Amino acid sequence: MTVHVGILGATGAVGQRFIQLLDEHPTFELAAVTASEASAGKRYAEAAKWRVDTPIPEEIADMEVVETTPEAVPDDVDLLFSSLPSGVASDVEPAFLEDGYVVSSNSSNDRMAPDVPLTIPEINPDHLGLIEVQREERGWDGALVKNPNCSTITMVPTLSALDEFGLERVRVSTLQAVSGAGYSGVTSMEIIDNALPHIGGEEEKMETESRKLLGSFDGAELDLHDADVSASCNRIPTIDGHLENVFAALAEEPDAEEVREAMRSLPGIDLPSAPDQLIHVFGEEQPDRPQPRLDRTTENGMAVVAGGVETTVDGVKYNCLAHNTIRGAAGASILNGELLVEEGWI
Amino acid sequence: MTVHVGILGATGAVGQRFIQLLDEHPTFELAAVTASEASAGKRYAEAAKWRVDTPIPEEIADMEVVETTPEAVPDDVDLLFSSLPSGVASDVEPAFLEDGYVVSSNSSNDRMAPDVPLTIPEINPDHLGLIEVQREERGWDGALVKNPNCSTITMVPTLSALDEFGLERVRVSTLQAVSGAGYSGVTSMEIIDNALPHIGGEEEKMETESRKLLGSFDGAELDLHDADVSASCNRIPTIDGHLENVFAALAEEPDAEEVREAMRSLPGIDLPSAPDQLIHVFGEEQPDRPQPRLDRTTENGMAVVAGGVETTVDGVKYNCLAHNTIRGAAGASILNGELLVEEGWI
Amino acid sequence: MTVHVGILGATGAVGQRFIQLLDEHPTFELAAVTASEASAGKRYAEAAKWRVDTPIPEEIADMEVVETTPEAVPDDVDLLFSSLPSGVASDVEPAFLEDGYVVSSNSSNDRMAPDVPLTIPEINPDHLGLIEVQREERGWDGALVKNPNCSTITMVPTLSALDEFGLERVRVSTLQAVSGAGYSGVTSMEIIDNALPHIGGEEEKMETESRKLLGSFDGAELDLHDADVSASCNRIPTIDGHLENVFAALAEEPDAEEVREAMRSLPGIDLPSAPDQLIHVFGEEQPDRPQPRLDRTTENGMAVVAGGVETTVDGVKYNCLAHNTIRGAAGASILNGELLVEEGWI
Amino acid sequence: MTVHVGILGATGAVGQRFIQLLDEHPTFELAAVTASEASAGKRYAEAAKWRVDTPIPEEIADMEVVETTPEAVPDDVDLLFSSLPSGVASDVEPAFLEDGYVVSSNSSNDRMAPDVPLTIPEINPDHLGLIEVQREERGWDGALVKNPNCSTITMVPTLSALDEFGLERVRVSTLQAVSGAGYSGVTSMEIIDNALPHIGGEEEKMETESRKLLGSFDGAELDLHDADVSASCNRIPTIDGHLENVFAALAEEPDAEEVREAMRSLPGIDLPSAPDQLIHVFGEEQPDRPQPRLDRTTENGMAVVAGGVETTVDGVKYNCLAHNTIRGAAGASILNGELLVEEGWI
Repeated sequence: MTVHVGILGATGAVGQRFIQLLDEHPTFELAAVTASEASAGKRYAEAAKWRVDTPIPEEIADMEVVETTPEAVPDDVDLLFSSLPSGVASDVEPAFLEDGYVVSSNSSNDRMAPDVPLTIPEINPDHLGLIEVQREERGWDGALVKNPNCSTITMVPTLSALDEFGLERVRVSTLQAVSGAGYSGVTSMEIIDNALPHIGGEEEKMETESRKLLGSFDGAELDLHDADVSASCNRIPTIDGHLENVFAALAEEPDAEEVREAMRSLPGIDLPSAPDQLIHVFGEEQPDRPQPRLDRTTENGMAVVAGGVETTVDGVKYNCLAHNTIRGAAGASILNGELLVEEGWI
Repeated sequence: MTVHVGILGATGAVGQRFIQLLDEHPTFELAAVTASEASAGKRYAEAAKWRVDTPIPEEIADMEVVETTPEAVPDDVDLLFSSLPSGVASDVEPAFLEDGYVVSSNSSNDRMAPDVPLTIPEINPDHLGLIEVQREERGWDGALVKNPNCSTITMVPTLSALDEFGLERVRVSTLQAVSGAGYSGVTSMEIIDNALPHIGGEEEKMETESRKLLGSFDGAELDLHDADVSASCNRIPTIDGHLENVFAALAEEPDAEEVREAMRSLPGIDLPSAPDQLIHVFGEEQPDRPQPRLDRTTENGMAVVAGGVETTVDGVKYNCLAHNTIRGAAGASILNGELLVEEGWI
Repeated sequence: MTVHVGILGATGAVGQRFIQLLDEHPTFELAAVTASEASAGKRYAEAAKWRVDTPIPEEIADMEVVETTPEAVPDDVDLLFSSLPSGVASDVEPAFLEDGYVVSSNSSNDRMAPDVPLTIPEINPDHLGLIEVQREERGWDGALVKNPNCSTITMVPTLSALDEFGLERVRVSTLQAVSGAGYSGVTSMEIIDNALPHIGGEEEKMETESRKLLGSFDGAELDLHDADVSASCNRIPTIDGHLENVFAALAEEPDAEEVREAMRSLPGIDLPSAPDQLIHVFGEEQPDRPQPRLDRTTENGMAVVAGGVETTVDGVKYNCLAHNTIRGAAGASILNGELLVEEGWI
Repeated sequence: MTVHVGILGATGAVGQRFIQLLDEHPTFELAAVTASEASAGKRYAEAAKWRVDTPIPEEIADMEVVETTPEAVPDDVDLLFSSLPSGVASDVEPAFLEDGYVVSSNSSNDRMAPDVPLTIPEINPDHLGLIEVQREERGWDGALVKNPNCSTITMVPTLSALDEFGLERVRVSTLQAVSGAGYSGVTSMEIIDNALPHIGGEEEKMETESRKLLGSFDGAELDLHDADVSASCNRIPTIDGHLENVFAALAEEPDAEEVREAMRSLPGIDLPSAPDQLIHVFGEEQPDRPQPRLDRTTENGMAVVAGGVETTVDGVKYNCLAHNTIRGAAGASILNGELLVEEGWI
């Protein structure tokens, strides 16, 4: 069974990653790439400044870029991935939804809307049920599903594993790669021999999105998890891979090995792009792992990698890592798309 | 008044920084440089691979390196700075102390010994009183004073400012520069396009040293501060300057401006190398500061720079930065030396 | 004697460097800062995103930015420095010249115009005589002087020293710092763990400007030097300091020490910002120097540093380095301004 | 047909790359890994600090490391790859050769010996004939074949393509990645925000090895190519991939497109690890390619990538790039091993 998919905003950094990941996808076939008016009508290879480290797939290079409107996208497209800037997406996505499209979006707008599922397939697939609420409230035929921010998605699987011990409070610091800001988001003058202790809006995203992802859905309403989450976000001179230091206060007192075991045994999901094991965990004999350059491509960049687990007075501290433009962006949207197909929404 | 000083372990990265900082010191005159047996007898310029970004002072270049023993150091030296590896220092420093030398040491051994003052002159100058205890217990004529680890010293002045609001719990993540590991401590293969989430022993140093520095001394015994401190330490691809994200739980509920004001108004000290203002604080209009490359040389690298202050559910979060080989190492020892002179121990 | 100076395009990366260098200048007093219409009327501290590693001088922070027009600049300004983008400069500079201003410009437009002196004060001060030609041909009361491109200025002093051996052919490769492209010129995604083997227009600048600088001026016309110069320009992940590998074919056969001696003994010039020695040269015992991070600030960033001199079959090879935004940009314009004052053009 | 192979010096950076590349080799099966006495007897996973970005193949992780002596290597090993330090290799390799082993070595010793073939299979496979000379002169039963230095191998295929136009003189500057120096060869303090204009011995290797590779073998003696080659070698802050700027003086005057065409049409070779096309060439519409991060893995890191071709007064200038630890080291030795099998030497 082939699902025809399209990419809204296909020429940017995340758009290019979508194309790379979809290149050998078993069921998704790329049938439309959209961009701004200025790029419409051009061959994809002309419209995009291709900067991924594998060649452009030949058939995509020659594909014509169309404008980001429902009219311009071919009718046989069943599923759209969105990597539009959030300002654009908040205008454009509703038009596609009114037109009946199913959209799996990486854009940050509407992630916290009470009727929009924010989903990591292994963590909260049941939240897709919010689509019914959404359709009722908004009168849409389509469906809008969001994946979380790259820094949120790196941490939440590990928090989900900890929740069995009673997750109460989270303090997290991030060491984020420059690719998270897009191709031109961080200048070289800003980051060489330097670090930036602020990423606009990022801390709030981590604090709110994580509580929604870990929240419970009763079929009608979604309750946020009541953990107190506070984040400090930093940009460092790495290309890909967000590394995070987490301090978690817990109700119970598991030892380090119980925490590692809880992470390792967190169930995965049977979808084409899902990793075999969601969280890989380094033991105490390798305290200097995970590292961005060595571990970001674990399971094709779709796994989370943790390590450095140690108990504290009130809980546990540890480090976690994920590939921010794969598991944290394009791969996350594709996985949500696979879940939508699996669950029959497409 | 001129004080003749010597440097134990003068050829390494911190030793070179000592020489650079002492070059134009108003009262300290460098009279002895020691190194391992292999270097003894050589001109300093031959023994050291000079890698600081100012030229070797000419008179030091021609100075003869002597072995690190009390016999080899000239008798008229009044004060010794130590930047020996801790394994060497724990053997060698006692020999100098038995011989009556006053040693201001950057080496990590004995920092937590109950009779050794661990001092930041602006924060806990009264702890020097431990020298009396030390002399009594060890039968030394000299005096041994330690400065804290570079990552500790970056944070503690800000914690000291917060203590008026009832400091209860600290969670801190560090983004540390490679110079903290010495000239060959971190290879380029380890750190380019990467970050290392572990620095051996560093987290424990931050957790224990900070409680000693903030502790109270009653003239006989030193009580550690009872805050719960937990740290995660990371190495990132920067040359100099440690950046730290601090989450502090407080008994009271100051707002962000009260916290900034408490930091800005922390008293300094009147010593030659001390900064005019100990903590510089960026306001909310510059949330992306401090940054290592732009702010590490504030007040010749002797100030701490803070920013990003925001309240949390249980206290406050903020970032702080200091130059790790100046304020965090050689400059810290020199400032302790100035305090020893000022207080009449030399 | 105080000379009132202004900066055209004062808010950009080079503009900020001008302000830093002029801060303690013995005779130049900054009296005007201009920028685009959008910034006019603002305080300088608001208009510029200050990114130099020393604080904004207080009196400049409060200075009002004016538009880049002759009308907006106060009449008592005697000398203007220009760091405008070349596209803007080619429109705006003539207006100032018609109005009688003397402009020392770092902008690349008109550098190769036959009636515009392109000057390095130590190398070709006599080329200032072209101002007479310029005034006659253009009917200007003012005077326009250019300094060369940052990559050219790094190499030309060494070529000038070699010319006594009959300079015939030059092949040069550059390893250029990102600051040469301005604050946002190179993105972090482009340069981390990477190098860019192309800088638009740079190779041609090196090839033509160097021949003009080394050319001879007979009082009426300027003849280009007839050396065959070919350049390959690369951007690498360094902040400041251009390093260059030069292969020079010579008519004579000097040995390496004669070449080093010719470089070291190249005469300097007695101007406030000039280095004591124009070219510092490392000998064969330090083949790994010059290095950007260690050597770029030699003599406050105004010296050229050479090393690695070795003979080849047809001449010599060596490396040279200069600070691209000091000796290669703002400092170069200031030095030309000092020469203009010294020679009585102001 | 399976060939049992071993790796001499299997725990270092190049040794790890050998293991990674051999993991899915169609005919070579890894049967022995050697290291120094200190590592002998350990499991490979314990002896090596694995730092390649794919996991250790499981069966290798458990393999026992043996000492680097002919006695310790199993008798059924047909072919040895050597990535020993050259000082060690010059002692150890002869022992294996006397014992009849065929050794395809990446170590730099003996590369210029007149009876040792220095081979790139696509360029000079006929030089393998030197093995007969070698056996006669040295009385060995085995055979010793060397591949060139990583910086040489990046350039020589392009020079071979140019030779049809009469290659007369080469001036080359390199921008080399840190992995070329081994895991601990370049410290982070040396290279962050910096470049090193010297790599010990590297320039001479490029100058001599390239002339041997391009030389002609008449069945008895090898004549070096008579081009005048001079190199300047630099280390820059990249992980993998050597970028080189070449200036080549030619007897004829091809235009840029003829040069590109000559490079593109250079014949490849039909061996398992050989790339489909030896030299990939970017045209004038992409002057900023090749770039290390984007292009180093072209054809699994076994291709050379060129670009920036422009004519000069006396020939041509261009840039070339190859993956230094794949095409430039482990992959080069493996390809030579494949050639030895193909030609019947094993």
